[in-house]
Amino acid sequence: MKTTVIGLDFGTLSARAAAFDIRTGEEKASAVFVYPHGCLDERLPEGTPVGLNECYQDPKDYEDALRTVIREVLDKGHIAPEEVLCVGTDFTFCTMLPVDKEGTPLAFRKEYASRSQAYVKLWKHHGAQKEADRINALAKERQEDFLKWSGGTVSSEYLLPKIWETLNKDPEIFEEAAYMIEAGDWITWQLTGKQVRNMSMAGYRGLYRDGWPSKDFLAALDERLKDLPETKLKSRMAPAGSLIGVVDEKGAALTGLKEGTYVSASQGDCYTTVLACGITKSAHMAAVIGTSAVYMVQDHRDFSVPGSNGTVLNGMLEGFYGFESGQCCLGDHFSWFEAHMVPASYEEEAGRRGVPVLSLLEEKAALLKPGASGVIALDWWNGTRSLLMDGELTGMFLGCTLKTTPEELFRALIEATAFGARLILDNDRKSGLKILRFTAAGGITHKNALLMQIFADVLDMEIDVAATTECGALGCAVYALTAAGKENGGCDTYEEAVKMLVKPAVKTYRPDPEHTKIYDELYQEYVTLHDFFGRDQESPMKKLLEIKKEVLKKE
Amino acid sequence: MKTTVIGLDFGTLSARAAAFDIRTGEEKASAVFVYPHGCLDERLPEGTPVGLNECYQDPKDYEDALRTVIREVLDKGHIAPEEVLCVGTDFTFCTMLPVDKEGTPLAFRKEYASRSQAYVKLWKHHGAQKEADRINALAKERQEDFLKWSGGTVSSEYLLPKIWETLNKDPEIFEEAAYMIEAGDWITWQLTGKQVRNMSMAGYRGLYRDGWPSKDFLAALDERLKDLPETKLKSRMAPAGSLIGVVDEKGAALTGLKEGTYVSASQGDCYTTVLACGITKSAHMAAVIGTSAVYMVQDHRDFSVPGSNGTVLNGMLEGFYGFESGQCCLGDHFSWFEAHMVPASYEEEAGRRGVPVLSLLEEKAALLKPGASGVIALDWWNGTRSLLMDGELTGMFLGCTLKTTPEELFRALIEATAFGARLILDNDRKSGLKILRFTAAGGITHKNALLMQIFADVLDMEIDVAATTECGALGCAVYALTAAGKENGGCDTYEEAVKMLVKPAVKTYRPDPEHTKIYDELYQEYVTLHDFFGRDQESPMKKLLEIKKEVLKKE
Repeated sequence: MKTTVIGLDFGTLSARAAAFDIRTGEEKASAVFVYPHGCLDERLPEGTPVGLNECYQDPKDYEDALRTVIREVLDKGHIAPEEVLCVGTDFTFCTMLPVDKEGTPLAFRKEYASRSQAYVKLWKHHGAQKEADRINALAKERQEDFLKWSGGTVSSEYLLPKIWETLNKDPEIFEEAAYMIEAGDWITWQLTGKQVRNMSMAGYRGLYRDGWPSKDFLAALDERLKDLPETKLKSRMAPAGSLIGVVDEKGAALTGLKEGTYVSASQGDCYTTVLACGITKSAHMAAVIGTSAVYMVQDHRDFSVPGSNGTVLNGMLEGFYGFESGQCCLGDHFSWFEAHMVPASYEEEAGRRGVPVLSLLEEKAALLKPGASGVIALDWWNGTRSLLMDGELTGMFLGCTLKTTPEELFRALIEATAFGARLILDNDRKSGLKILRFTAAGGITHKNALLMQIFADVLDMEIDVAATTECGALGCAVYALTAAGKENGGCDTYEEAVKMLVKPAVKTYRPDPEHTKIYDELYQEYVTLHDFFGRDQESPMKKLLEIKKEVLKKE
Repeated sequence: MKTTVIGLDFGTLSARAAAFDIRTGEEKASAVFVYPHGCLDERLPEGTPVGLNECYQDPKDYEDALRTVIREVLDKGHIAPEEVLCVGTDFTFCTMLPVDKEGTPLAFRKEYASRSQAYVKLWKHHGAQKEADRINALAKERQEDFLKWSGGTVSSEYLLPKIWETLNKDPEIFEEAAYMIEAGDWITWQLTGKQVRNMSMAGYRGLYRDGWPSKDFLAALDERLKDLPETKLKSRMAPAGSLIGVVDEKGAALTGLKEGTYVSASQGDCYTTVLACGITKSAHMAAVIGTSAVYMVQDHRDFSVPGSNGTVLNGMLEGFYGFESGQCCLGDHFSWFEAHMVPASYEEEAGRRGVPVLSLLEEKAALLKPGASGVIALDWWNGTRSLLMDGELTGMFLGCTLKTTPEELFRALIEATAFGARLILDNDRKSGLKILRFTAAGGITHKNALLMQIFADVLDMEIDVAATTECGALGCAVYALTAAGKENGGCDTYEEAVKMLVKPAVKTYRPDPEHTKIYDELYQEYVTLHDFFGRDQESPMKKLLEIKKEVLKKE
């Protein structure tokens, strides 16, 4: 009897598998595989240094993950491979790699061991800024359609800049690659033997909508790019998480699963949160709040949301347009603060009381009244990827006095992330989207009650906190179960699958009307600062960056 | 034989006396008397609480200082009272008190023990903001002359707001006071038996120039103030540091000095630095760099310098117009940083290596290149008292990223103080003043080489560092020696007295042309931020303060 569904979540530094009991929804076992090579942001495995802001991975790590985590989960959960009905996967994106006709990564070839362009380019690889700038300029000039639903700006993290970068830096690798493929789709290819691309990653990071960017546009960029759609990008396209096939002989040998196990299309790692939060309807926003943050909402109608990260049909849930925006930096702010801004006396107090330093800071910050410190921050320690779409913008503390305390700065940083979120919601709504409910997920949502309360106060919405903090594997499992279909022992609708696997929210934060009022005022100042520093090309923030670049160039 | 001159420096928390040998210039002995009552900013000695932002002192402490420090210095230095030629004093200012006809402080009367207005109002007493606001409004309306040479704004720290506050809060004390006098002038009164006011404090903090504000203006403020000039402010006026008399019988009994010892007029404690730096000419700026900073320069011509803290003839050196500007906060920034922003790992490193934490920060910050961090600050942790004259402005860090380190923020703070200084120099020069040389004094100038180098780079000037770090007593001694006159065994000119007592600069910092170029660019951004946040009444910085006040009011 098929009692089990497996979700397999490929993150930035590790892959995590979890097995769920279809009958009870319980997680039976999980396992993590940490990529032995991690992020290659200093040198390739054989020693060649990589450029500044570049970040590669070794596809061997993904293969090894497939070889070990599923076996480990089955082992730990005492699950026979026969009991597994289906498997769903997700991956960070756009994380792309060049492969040959059979799907073998070019990085596996000895002769390319020292060639960075043969490796996987991780989502946060920033080596293609020049290419992105050129794509943006030309697209704006030609008023390319994709600008409307891709948020208006092509990031250097997107597929096309990354491919073009390969062509510019190492034409031989470009030539040799039969396909340039998302790592997520490469995984399902290893499982099923079929190259299928999921519409989510293609839509949100690949400029795909009913088709890739036009031959005409590609040729105008670079004559050598014009055939991409029918060559290196050619593929069947599938809604994210939809059924694409079954585990084949090779996939079974690799993973330990049985041939015939259902496999759903890959999905972007953050989007799995929508289902993991139990969301199956329009106007219900899912937020992944972690080191960075992603905000997702569905609608049956198509809207252009300038300053968002894109609108993709079938991108999150089949049959819906999925809207995404995000913040480059959320929890990372707090980690930075913890690493650099916590005085010894606080460390000592935390140690004495046996609480984590961040909890102590939160405790102290929670005693403060909104607005009482006079401090405000801009949450751009890692730039911003919504509205202004400028990864180079920087963070700010304003309002310091000789009485300003670490907890006041810390609280200002929390508030700034909430203001940044509000800006995203306001922007979505201005474009016509409805947002009536809000569910937050991610480890930090369980740990940092102050953050959640401030989000509720600033957004003036109830915030539900999802039960699971491991959304990736659970979301993948919901997709897979729906993909398998009722007649095969799965489900026919997301609602059914959610009912089987997803637990209700563990906590609801309600806005405090008095706080909301003060935050309304502070938010106006946040917006003024946002526009002054972020929009004006001559703003001190941008000038400082120019000066910095000039200085570093001379070193 | 008269071999000794004594300088007596009344600071915020203590008085310090030093005896110098006239023949060698050596400091023979020094002594410090810490005021037992310190600052009365929470309650009066008998327990009555004082208001927010108010700060009083007990004149008993000054009397006790006079009774002990001079005796201690004579003792320590094996100096007979007969050997003392002259004594010079200085005091913080405007530090004022109400006294009776004989000069006895009203605070000495038992029946006034619980009446705050009977006590000394320390320079940093901020209880008269309402009065200052009204004075400014009316003065602007009437285009009062004093606005031209007092920098354009009357601070709540000035004499007139403080006197008016007494009238408003406790009319009986106002009525009972025969005089409202600077504590500095009260000291020389105790020594000589003569009430003489020094032109420096009167000019820089009392709106005095050839006369006090007009009867007409005073009456327009408050009918009860109109007679001030011929009643509570009536006095002989003397150039700061000039000869005003000799120690009388009472003064001798109080201090242990001999009757007939020459006494010079009081001086504002920061202005003594001019002579302590050996400055006797125009266009040579003296800077006192301590918790806050003061910048002083002389000229034979009279200029109106809007945004400065005033222009006073005979205010610093007799025969010169003295120009003053300042920063509310300089070293205080670094103390704040040390208290709140230094991570445990740095404390640990400093401890392990046996160096002060601030030295470690300086060492790390010195390794950074100007402009390379991309961080800039506004040095307004305690507001600003030049140009914008707004004590409520707040500080800022701009340009933070996830890689920003404490030493980058620390260096930005140092740079901001130097930018603030440059703004003052630029403003002085714009008004016509020449500044060709720059000598810095204060403990911090000996300790923080990076600060001095950055000042040299930002100001694009050589910075001489004065030999003494105790400018107060030395400057007083130079004044006293000049006041005594050559025929009495003193000197006829400042130059002669400086030659006798002041040692040459201990170090000269020279600007690095490459750094100066980068700082020129960064300074432009500082100015943009300064104007955006400081000048616009609707700026987020000012709005935040409004919100903060509103919130705190509700508590």
